[in-house]
Amino acid sequence: MVSKNTIKRITSLGQKKYRNREGIFVAEGIKVITELLQSTFLLKELYVEDENAFAKAITKKEASKIFKATHTELKKLSFLKTPQKAVAVFNIPKESIIDRGGITVVIDDVRDPGNLGTIIRLCDWFGIKQLICSPQTVDCFNPKVVQATMGSLTRVHIIYTNLEEYLKEEHRTIYGTFMDGTNIYQCTLEKEGVLIMGNEANGISSTIEHYINSRIAIPRFGVQQATESLNVATAAAISLSEFKR
Amino acid sequence: MVSKNTIKRITSLGQKKYRNREGIFVAEGIKVITELLQSTFLLKELYVEDENAFAKAITKKEASKIFKATHTELKKLSFLKTPQKAVAVFNIPKESIIDRGGITVVIDDVRDPGNLGTIIRLCDWFGIKQLICSPQTVDCFNPKVVQATMGSLTRVHIIYTNLEEYLKEEHRTIYGTFMDGTNIYQCTLEKEGVLIMGNEANGISSTIEHYINSRIAIPRFGVQQATESLNVATAAAISLSEFKR
Repeated sequence: MVSKNTIKRITSLGQKKYRNREGIFVAEGIKVITELLQSTFLLKELYVEDENAFAKAITKKEASKIFKATHTELKKLSFLKTPQKAVAVFNIPKESIIDRGGITVVIDDVRDPGNLGTIIRLCDWFGIKQLICSPQTVDCFNPKVVQATMGSLTRVHIIYTNLEEYLKEEHRTIYGTFMDGTNIYQCTLEKEGVLIMGNEANGISSTIEHYINSRIAIPRFGVQQATESLNVATAAAISLSEFKR
Repeated sequence: MVSKNTIKRITSLGQKKYRNREGIFVAEGIKVITELLQSTFLLKELYVEDENAFAKAITKKEASKIFKATHTELKKLSFLKTPQKAVAVFNIPKESIIDRGGITVVIDDVRDPGNLGTIIRLCDWFGIKQLICSPQTVDCFNPKVVQATMGSLTRVHIIYTNLEEYLKEEHRTIYGTFMDGTNIYQCTLEKEGVLIMGNEANGISSTIEHYINSRIAIPRFGVQQATESLNVATAAAISLSEFKR
């Protein structure tokens, strides 16, 4: 049985202040939890309908942290519209040290959990080890972000820091996408560099734009009058594909 | 004042059967509605806080279809978490005739409204005029899809049809992305062709796979053991970028 107190405590982790106070976050679903169990993330508690679901991923030490829960109880613990068969609580890991090699992706105030989750998943796909986020960017331990990353959170290190202070010390080329930039398909992209992705509504902020020394553009092939821009996650997908191809 | 009956009638349009019975759909927000007003889509009704918001986009004939609504009323009409300043009802246009030129994107059972909306937006960006969807694909007039397209619905023609019957008659190369396909960065992609994108969980179905004559792959640069695949919308972004670059 899952107590009322436990339900209250876990659902409070939907809020950043409670996650930070306790140093823990929630992950849902067999696939995401299995990936976290097989990584360096430390398990705190695991609630599951069928205890055998994690038989292969669980160590002896972790076995005492598993609790049986009914479908109804999991529904109460869940942050998702379609509750999964397991809900787990993990420790928030220590932030790693900034590494200035290869390609680093920098996030300037992305607010939508699905967009940040998709970008983390993309970084994982393209072998980008580090993602640097502005303090106003949605928290990567928000339950919806954790869900959207599909386990990529275990392979991409995410650091929240003041972007101006970080960029001031950066010696690699700093790229940003703009409507008036150089055609990304025609310019030479360096093997080492920083790629900045901006906010959904406002793009890259003017204080950050100041640090960019290579303005690139993803050309539009459709009707030229159309004012629409690409979604930030799809723009990241196309840009990273060009850097890595 | 917006009557209770109007609220009931408009919220029922969240369901496909009511949209199809009435031949109408809902669009929300100044930006999306403005794009629809400036296109060939026919306005039925428009509820707005500030009637001047559409002064430039509205014709004389349409002026009689505008009704003032309070914030509270718009909240009741809205399908969004953060209600917009306007809600409109438009006629569902007639489906266009299948055109077998250029690049056509085919959707094999994409279920998530956000993913379909993003793909429609991508088609618009890359100048893809036609999107062919299986009957099981989420309806493009679902309010969440309409929202995610950000107006691209006015420039991309969407046809729902039996994919096997459509593909049987296709003479262009039919491409599909698979883990074991040819590296997309190394193969020659034709200027005219069909690109099939599969379901979020199961990929391209086996009955449809049968029609594919060019299997392509987006190579993974991250940890090779990781089993994770790309999200369907980001895979579409990278593939279309490669076809068009």
